[in-house]
Amino acid sequence: MHTSVPQQTTQPAPQESFDPRDWNELRRVGHAMVDAVVDHLETVRERPVWQPVPEDVRARLREPLPREGQGPSATFADFRRDVLPYGWGNIHPRFWGWVNGSGVPIGVFADFLASAMNPNVGAFEQAATYVEEQVLDWLKTMLDFPAETGGVLASGCSMANLIALGAMRSKQAPFDVRRHGMTAAPRQMTLYASEETHGSVVKAVEALGFGSEMLRRIPVGADYRVDVAALERAIHDDRAAGLQPVAIIGNAGTVNTGAIDDLDALADLAERERLWLHVDGAFGALAWLDEASRPALRGLQRVDSVAFDLHKWLYLPNDVGCVLVRDADALERGFEMRADYLTRLRGGLTAHPTRFSNRSIELTRRFRALKVWMALKDHGADRFARILGRNLEQARYLAERVEASPELEVAAPVPLNVVNFAYRGGADAEERDALNEELLVRLQESGAAVPSFTKIRGRSVLRVAITNHRSRHEDFDFLVDEVVRLGREIEGEFRAGAQDTKKPEVCDVGRA
Amino acid sequence: MHTSVPQQTTQPAPQESFDPRDWNELRRVGHAMVDAVVDHLETVRERPVWQPVPEDVRARLREPLPREGQGPSATFADFRRDVLPYGWGNIHPRFWGWVNGSGVPIGVFADFLASAMNPNVGAFEQAATYVEEQVLDWLKTMLDFPAETGGVLASGCSMANLIALGAMRSKQAPFDVRRHGMTAAPRQMTLYASEETHGSVVKAVEALGFGSEMLRRIPVGADYRVDVAALERAIHDDRAAGLQPVAIIGNAGTVNTGAIDDLDALADLAERERLWLHVDGAFGALAWLDEASRPALRGLQRVDSVAFDLHKWLYLPNDVGCVLVRDADALERGFEMRADYLTRLRGGLTAHPTRFSNRSIELTRRFRALKVWMALKDHGADRFARILGRNLEQARYLAERVEASPELEVAAPVPLNVVNFAYRGGADAEERDALNEELLVRLQESGAAVPSFTKIRGRSVLRVAITNHRSRHEDFDFLVDEVVRLGREIEGEFRAGAQDTKKPEVCDVGRA
Repeated sequence: MHTSVPQQTTQPAPQESFDPRDWNELRRVGHAMVDAVVDHLETVRERPVWQPVPEDVRARLREPLPREGQGPSATFADFRRDVLPYGWGNIHPRFWGWVNGSGVPIGVFADFLASAMNPNVGAFEQAATYVEEQVLDWLKTMLDFPAETGGVLASGCSMANLIALGAMRSKQAPFDVRRHGMTAAPRQMTLYASEETHGSVVKAVEALGFGSEMLRRIPVGADYRVDVAALERAIHDDRAAGLQPVAIIGNAGTVNTGAIDDLDALADLAERERLWLHVDGAFGALAWLDEASRPALRGLQRVDSVAFDLHKWLYLPNDVGCVLVRDADALERGFEMRADYLTRLRGGLTAHPTRFSNRSIELTRRFRALKVWMALKDHGADRFARILGRNLEQARYLAERVEASPELEVAAPVPLNVVNFAYRGGADAEERDALNEELLVRLQESGAAVPSFTKIRGRSVLRVAITNHRSRHEDFDFLVDEVVRLGREIEGEFRAGAQDTKKPEVCDVGRA
Repeated sequence: MHTSVPQQTTQPAPQESFDPRDWNELRRVGHAMVDAVVDHLETVRERPVWQPVPEDVRARLREPLPREGQGPSATFADFRRDVLPYGWGNIHPRFWGWVNGSGVPIGVFADFLASAMNPNVGAFEQAATYVEEQVLDWLKTMLDFPAETGGVLASGCSMANLIALGAMRSKQAPFDVRRHGMTAAPRQMTLYASEETHGSVVKAVEALGFGSEMLRRIPVGADYRVDVAALERAIHDDRAAGLQPVAIIGNAGTVNTGAIDDLDALADLAERERLWLHVDGAFGALAWLDEASRPALRGLQRVDSVAFDLHKWLYLPNDVGCVLVRDADALERGFEMRADYLTRLRGGLTAHPTRFSNRSIELTRRFRALKVWMALKDHGADRFARILGRNLEQARYLAERVEASPELEVAAPVPLNVVNFAYRGGADAEERDALNEELLVRLQESGAAVPSFTKIRGRSVLRVAITNHRSRHEDFDFLVDEVVRLGREIEGEFRAGAQDTKKPEVCDVGRA
């Protein structure tokens, strides 16, 4: 009944707006941006992975608030000069630091289209609602979860973990926790996870008011998987002490080594103990796409909830993650909100019953689903499985190359896509740590490759996490050669006691 | 020291990737996207504000997971056919539902560039870190906050409220709440806010484990501002009952009517009672840009924290919000996280000390700052102030037009940019509610304009919230004319007892 759209009969007076007076100027700038982006992506391999921000650029990024505008062309020129060259590096084929996705190009364009449409995907009758529902169905299909599983997209796995544990809290607490608060709990509630569990789980546990000490950190074995017998003992000990165990958090791919807990054993234990089993599968859950990895993930479909990122191993641009919750009602009970201004009427914009905002903290929600939708349509799910499988094969290849090099050693098992290794030099363990830290800094600053840092069993190592669709075998060959070359160079300097060699200082994280 | 970037001496074997085999195809599709977006924005006024998603489109948005890819051109064609026409409507000049930004075009392009660079802005040495720091400084300047104020960008005000109250909780709790949890609190902690406070504040209070009943909902006066004397009494009553008051949450622009609490009085009270004063300024805080509105916001700079959206009244595309916290250390104490894999080394990528992820739940963070940076450089802050001021003037104009119309009435004061009004018809209050609900549905379904729904003093009204840089005076004229026309039409049907008129059914929010 689109009958009453007004016709502009008189030419409106010009009015100041954020729309350009000359749309063709914006169109030209937009075309220049597309060319710049395509050029930037096409030639990424020819550039250093990373470079520091020069002082003159930093100075320009400290200028005061612009009161008057300079127009889109000059603004884009500033971006090209001061921002674009000084990226994070994760779009480069030799970036393997932390766990960062490398970015599907069609996803970049999808984010453009999402911002152009600019919907609020909190709920309601619009294409974006159907697209997100479809994408959630596709993700369930990819992970072999039943269609009735609840789910929602989030800004990433930190939020997805928080949402899952929020749903858990509402279901497991023996009282109305949203109403009465955690202080009303008759007993402290306890949660269980391995000592290798990611900090985002700790943050979620803290945010929800459980307290980090109520998250029992259970030891791992030599394979960095949680000791299930120790976990069971901890549950029994806490029950005996009058506490209330509520949840187990398993890992599908720990951040340090990629270890996958025995999810089947955790599911058995959670069933016996009537606990909620959540799995932090930030990158590892998607290894389910790789047939050969499925035995290691057995039990994944038995969890109560799983959180995973799509901007890591589904290679999409930041940000998009997902949480799936077996009990769809529990998810909504954790986060639903009623308000007069959100009333559903019989027709119009509010007619659609889905309320994504009732499954999340966010009420206004960006159209994150579009890049998932376009990437899966453009490339097909099978290509994602093949390229993810190649990353797994590359991790094994790198581990073999490291093992074959007398100066290097692999520092931890490689069950997934993470390889920790170190240069063997140094007079003692402390000097060896210093050598490897210096090596990593020089490697990053050379622009040759970006592994990141961690400690394995207390020793400093180089950490390579491969979620990169651009990496090739020769990139890992080059990495090994560079690490050996730099290791020899630094060891020589250490031995010579060279006065001009700065020993590295490791600064701690956070406020000093 | 960019010395060791390898030269590609041999042509690598082709390898399957998400990069196109033919970059020129992606380039062509990208250019077509720019043209489609510019055309879509340039002609938005000529289309209906909103239309429902047709059944054939819905069916295509229920198709199973694509296993094989179809390439970028076909994917873009699907987007143009099935997604683009069925938007939320908020980019249209006659969309005034809920509070949604209308989108600065340069921000749309900035989101494209942000996704192309694809950084993780959790921390570290990269241009994106400096850009976010600069943008935070600019926002402090715009709101006249001191430079040393802490801050971080977030996905929106829901998260910003959560972050602010998380920082408050760590500072105000008389024990280490992150470690011991809310169950360890010696006394229930209480918070105070008006009954007009937004649901996202309630959600944040629930998520953090305070319990919604510990958020004392204080009555408002006829102006919908919190009754400060009643608030003070509630604090004293709770203290007398052995509870521990910790925070006051003020409103700078309530969702229903745009009311601004007396922030100066709340700041005085918070000082006297040693409480944290947080202000939910989702849209209203930015009214500070308008000189004439500053007296109503007096006290804004005295708060401990303020949360506001940039995708509402700074007109940027979803999503981006901001939280400012006077005690920058308190913000970090609320959310900092230490981990071996986040260790800061003397150089390389981790050299920069800023850790945005220590001020937020999110560890991976999208480059939200870029659209703020580009929009302020393109247009200048003064234009934002002028266009925001025009929206305020338009709200007054609409209220005058409504008051001048004998069939209509303004339902609440209009202190800011929100106008609630109703058609006066109907035999009784219940029929009048039904009439106005039906009117709103027909208005939305006609595509003519999109106000949203709320209840004021228990009565159904049409609610217009103006955060739209494309709206013109004639759009409000047209709205008034259409509402009167539809009101007469529906009233006629009601009087005729027409059998074919469906009486509206108001469905409740959430799970029925």
